[in-house]
Amino acid sequence: MTPQSEDFSAWYNELVLKAELVDRGPVRGTMVIRPYGYRIWELLQSDLDRRIKETGHQNAYFPLLIPQSYLEREAEHVEGFAPELAVVTHAGGKELEEPLIVRPTSETIIGEFMAKWISSHRDLPMLLNQWANVVRWELRPRMFLRTTEFLWQEGHTAHAGEADAMRETMLALQEIYARTVRELAAMPVIEGEKTPGERFAGAARTFTIEAMMRDGRALQAGTSHYMGTNFAQAFNIQYTGEDGQLTYAHTTSWGMTTRMIGAVIMTHGDDKGLVLPPRVAPYQVVIVPIGRGEQAAEVVPAAAALAQRLADAGIRVHVDDRPQLSPGFKFNEWELRGAPIRLELGPRDLAAGSAVMARRLGGGKESISLDSAPARLADELDAFQDFLLERATVFRDEHTVTTDEWDDFTRAVATGWARALACGTPACEEEIKAATSATARCIPLDGPPESGPCIRCGLPSAYGKRVIFGRAY
Amino acid sequence: MTPQSEDFSAWYNELVLKAELVDRGPVRGTMVIRPYGYRIWELLQSDLDRRIKETGHQNAYFPLLIPQSYLEREAEHVEGFAPELAVVTHAGGKELEEPLIVRPTSETIIGEFMAKWISSHRDLPMLLNQWANVVRWELRPRMFLRTTEFLWQEGHTAHAGEADAMRETMLALQEIYARTVRELAAMPVIEGEKTPGERFAGAARTFTIEAMMRDGRALQAGTSHYMGTNFAQAFNIQYTGEDGQLTYAHTTSWGMTTRMIGAVIMTHGDDKGLVLPPRVAPYQVVIVPIGRGEQAAEVVPAAAALAQRLADAGIRVHVDDRPQLSPGFKFNEWELRGAPIRLELGPRDLAAGSAVMARRLGGGKESISLDSAPARLADELDAFQDFLLERATVFRDEHTVTTDEWDDFTRAVATGWARALACGTPACEEEIKAATSATARCIPLDGPPESGPCIRCGLPSAYGKRVIFGRAY
Repeated sequence: MTPQSEDFSAWYNELVLKAELVDRGPVRGTMVIRPYGYRIWELLQSDLDRRIKETGHQNAYFPLLIPQSYLEREAEHVEGFAPELAVVTHAGGKELEEPLIVRPTSETIIGEFMAKWISSHRDLPMLLNQWANVVRWELRPRMFLRTTEFLWQEGHTAHAGEADAMRETMLALQEIYARTVRELAAMPVIEGEKTPGERFAGAARTFTIEAMMRDGRALQAGTSHYMGTNFAQAFNIQYTGEDGQLTYAHTTSWGMTTRMIGAVIMTHGDDKGLVLPPRVAPYQVVIVPIGRGEQAAEVVPAAAALAQRLADAGIRVHVDDRPQLSPGFKFNEWELRGAPIRLELGPRDLAAGSAVMARRLGGGKESISLDSAPARLADELDAFQDFLLERATVFRDEHTVTTDEWDDFTRAVATGWARALACGTPACEEEIKAATSATARCIPLDGPPESGPCIRCGLPSAYGKRVIFGRAY
Repeated sequence: MTPQSEDFSAWYNELVLKAELVDRGPVRGTMVIRPYGYRIWELLQSDLDRRIKETGHQNAYFPLLIPQSYLEREAEHVEGFAPELAVVTHAGGKELEEPLIVRPTSETIIGEFMAKWISSHRDLPMLLNQWANVVRWELRPRMFLRTTEFLWQEGHTAHAGEADAMRETMLALQEIYARTVRELAAMPVIEGEKTPGERFAGAARTFTIEAMMRDGRALQAGTSHYMGTNFAQAFNIQYTGEDGQLTYAHTTSWGMTTRMIGAVIMTHGDDKGLVLPPRVAPYQVVIVPIGRGEQAAEVVPAAAALAQRLADAGIRVHVDDRPQLSPGFKFNEWELRGAPIRLELGPRDLAAGSAVMARRLGGGKESISLDSAPARLADELDAFQDFLLERATVFRDEHTVTTDEWDDFTRAVATGWARALACGTPACEEEIKAATSATARCIPLDGPPESGPCIRCGLPSAYGKRVIFGRAY
């Protein structure tokens, strides 16, 4: 396999196929998510779904096919999505009177129904979420990161006023997304606001969590949008207030997608392959029985018994007992596939009541006692999870430069991020992009107040704080 | 609301909307599944998903958009689905070179990838499942039962030979579907095989679980297909056996859909509205605090505290504390929405340390002690679940007639099912349908051996046992 350090992009493209996470679909830019990749998604999904429900949202399901006229009702929205739409023109053997759009996102159709369901202030807030597939025609596809079809959840909420809607926007960003991504994917993310040039089509404000990949590029891992009354006006989402007045609702939407699988790969992987954080690893521990013939007859059942004890302790475990493959082949394969911990169990280990433990990263091999294996491995997995978050945090901080000099800035964004002051005009952002390939990733929520001349044009800076710039996926 | 006994169809159509399970989508035959309806689906889904995984299957995800040429490779398959297809002809602002089909089912695209992934007998069995949306253009839509888009799971498996593939087909039917439907949805189903005229397009054998609705009609609640080598030949799914020979795999597929929500409604509902089996009820217990003003200030917190104790005991509970609505209104609404148990909690109940319990069906109101409420209600919910299965079984058996007389047969299928001998030719099945609207629902797996003249044409019967006939959804 191409080493990560030599060609990050080739490394990624080879790895996602070799690790059996994904396969290329027959239609340009589509993907088949294979069981090992889908399991990572399910683990992220179940944590997100729990948090979404605990914060009072309810799941629902809206149709895939949206009348073209719906998209046209919000001008910026249709302009933003028009180049990416897939259109159904024929169905049931006939040409349709009105073309149907395969949803690229569901603001419009959900807006239509919110308008129908909301009449009084008592109907607010309306807190909906949907797990679904969406289609956005992709000219430069990359597995998981940019695909013609992807899976996601999309939260859609309506509120009585701006303050409530903004609280919701930040709740989704901070309490749902940032926590899932940090705690499960072991990715340290920066929470921030997008500059006007990077806003979602139709949003008043867009917030993001940005993560740094191991090539120094930024990846937007989740976004949360405050729509103001833009969609409420386009779809007539109005409520009668306590004062009897008819008023437009304020809406939000927020989404996280299967690109998170790509983010995990690029945050933690190395030359040997995937490195999966235990909380999203399909198999947290892989047991490789060592020995052939009579020895196998002894160690394979012992490995199965050990696996059962680990499973009973809540550890996701897999026994690789394929008789036709050598232990060395299996070691390499489970390193490639990123299993956090490997246990080798041979006849001598078994006689000694122990197994040989090898972590995917850090430390040599170590003998551990079979008796205490469930507790010991649970601790090791926690430590491995913490180690990955720490390592990624150090990496990000080492590749982030705070600078007021253009030369420093260009060097910084070639290998990581720059924190710089910027005037905030889209034209200046375009110039920066043309010169460096870097874009404004976000205005960090927790950045200290600061102002001065724009890193590029020297005009006074906007936002009252520094902006993070970087090349992005 | 129209009473069930007066016009079953009108009752159903009104109820699904009034109970806020669903709304009509903007595109013909599509539906919006609202939170209360979607929660029923999630409860079914999580039980199905657990059984699917416990029996060794892995979830994956295949693309929504399928090249038209894929569907054309299996002649019967494309012929069966052609009238129902939705076609994407334009995407990314251009006309496509090859039209894309919005998947009506995924045999073809999964077949293509199975062919790629399977090479040796060691790769078998391959046991995949997918949770997805599918689109089949529907001319006579009915919410949940026949919709242009629906949600489902589709299992797709490949095996070394017929025996293995048939075991899988029956496992899906009996261990996965029949058990979920009986145990969660409290629906007594007949497991059987479809006659040749009712087989899935491209299948060698189709098996079904058939349930009786409260108007006596049959509903196919899940199907499991043995494909023989039809799809293996169309997509070249071959493996090298232990003997070194290249051999076609035998495949299966099986699906269960959101029509199950409709099945639950029509199996248990009555003139007052839904009756939900506790294991699929979004709220198993609804607490209605009784009292206004100062009384409310006392009973509402007490209701919340009781709800917390019930939730801690694993009961799905909801407190309806909407101040603007009367208790009577709430009682009617939760009867309409089918909550299995209602608890009324007023100041006098609270003083006595009790609450008034009302079951959705059977028995009058009863006072229960707050102290023992969690254990008592858990028992009541189990009993209610059992009662519904028993009631539906009795109803079905009372509306099923074993007959060898044509007149009895026509009377039987007007109000329920007939068990009759049949010659098995599609032409004779067509005649029976033309005369009575009834179709062959299935040849029950557990029917005793029997033979004789066909109920319609008098020729010798096929299958060696009786066939169940009924009008169907």
